[in-house]
Amino acid sequence: LGTLTFVGLGLHSERGITLAGLDRLKRADVIYVETYTNLMPGLKLSKLEALIGKKITKLNRENLEEFCEQNVLKDAKKLDVVLLVPGDPMTATTHIDLRLRAQRIGVKTEVIHGVSIISAASGISGLQVYKFGKTVTIPFPSDIYKPETPYDVIKENWVRGLHSLVLLDINAEVKRYMTIKEGLDYLLSIEDERRENVVTLKKLAVGVARVGSSKPTVRADSVQRILELNFGKPPHTLIFPGKLHFMEAEALKKFAFAPQEALSDYL
Amino acid sequence: LGTLTFVGLGLHSERGITLAGLDRLKRADVIYVETYTNLMPGLKLSKLEALIGKKITKLNRENLEEFCEQNVLKDAKKLDVVLLVPGDPMTATTHIDLRLRAQRIGVKTEVIHGVSIISAASGISGLQVYKFGKTVTIPFPSDIYKPETPYDVIKENWVRGLHSLVLLDINAEVKRYMTIKEGLDYLLSIEDERRENVVTLKKLAVGVARVGSSKPTVRADSVQRILELNFGKPPHTLIFPGKLHFMEAEALKKFAFAPQEALSDYL
Repeated sequence: LGTLTFVGLGLHSERGITLAGLDRLKRADVIYVETYTNLMPGLKLSKLEALIGKKITKLNRENLEEFCEQNVLKDAKKLDVVLLVPGDPMTATTHIDLRLRAQRIGVKTEVIHGVSIISAASGISGLQVYKFGKTVTIPFPSDIYKPETPYDVIKENWVRGLHSLVLLDINAEVKRYMTIKEGLDYLLSIEDERRENVVTLKKLAVGVARVGSSKPTVRADSVQRILELNFGKPPHTLIFPGKLHFMEAEALKKFAFAPQEALSDYL
Repeated sequence: LGTLTFVGLGLHSERGITLAGLDRLKRADVIYVETYTNLMPGLKLSKLEALIGKKITKLNRENLEEFCEQNVLKDAKKLDVVLLVPGDPMTATTHIDLRLRAQRIGVKTEVIHGVSIISAASGISGLQVYKFGKTVTIPFPSDIYKPETPYDVIKENWVRGLHSLVLLDINAEVKRYMTIKEGLDYLLSIEDERRENVVTLKKLAVGVARVGSSKPTVRADSVQRILELNFGKPPHTLIFPGKLHFMEAEALKKFAFAPQEALSDYL
């Protein structure tokens, strides 16, 4: 008669968790954490452990996705188990899958929400969250795998005048986090072949780094200029604006240092 | 040489704030709160005041939007001012506008993110956040104002196979919060005229109530059945699914009690 509660850690550090999340940890019998679906550069688990007076067990992808019957699910059959996840739980397929697996073996599940990059990145850019279309992630490409989906999604959103939030892949096991520059290079190489005028050097892009930290970097400019800028440490995120409301244009100028000439085609 | 920091309260109650948000409140000279852009039914400001040992001043729409020069902005010229807002700051135009006004008079601004309905509603439904299209809000209609935008947005998303998050209007001054039933009636009356098969009684809808509370209600079924269900107290939110991945279909069955026959056209 156990339970499995997914608790969102929010962004950047252990201070990103909500009070409701912290309350829930204090009541838990067992606490696991996964840190591979999103990068939280300021996360200090020992500080969180000190706050709640309990040990937190770290799981990597293999533990959680292949062997969850031997850890999280095994405990959740009898105990009050919390799985801590970066951001807002259930935005990663892994968590939906695990929640379904728990449900199938009769374990009650709950969710305590966390701050998500989905709303935070749009908010910090000054663009209106209601004007974003479908979100997409750029994966690390390989010789045989380089999907054009991100290009297609940006194009589809653009045609409808909508902004695109483009998340950048992470590979936590090898501590590899895609940069804004790598993301743009990915898209430009597709543009080179397809030439549909979706992501060119002249297009407007917004680069966002370390959302949720006390020192986020937010810069809007032409793709060409964005490629030259140093956004600092990961995580990085990209936004391609669609049609801009005058207030959004002003916000991009004031909060993302966009030069007027980069915006004129978007008004 | 003051600052204005927007701090997100997250969802439902004062326990929805992050530890980072709470840290920031403890350092502030003056704290304002607005509670009219989103309903937080469990919010007890006195409890938050007790936690931080400071008074919090409540602002209504008129105070914040028309007279902000006399309260928030006046103080922010010299002091360390926090404006608490429900959900994630900057998702409401009001906050973007206020941030720009502060910037124009030389006040430094910062944002501390909160949990947003945008990611939480999709997460709790079991639908993948990456498969949502543009978000839309249904406004309270009047004799002379009943825009068809929500219908158009759901249609556009549907054509692309995307889910639609449909937020429901609130009018905090008169404590009026649109229910799932009112939202569906709004859309069905447009369907009656346009007959484009976007929101009919047979379509699949997901009703979500009180996200972020310990007792959220999440139900997926035909529009006809959803209209008959009692979702309890506000806030309410609607989702119209697009094409379903098999895992999303299972999640709707397990976590939103969807009957198989309501899902078959979506797989």
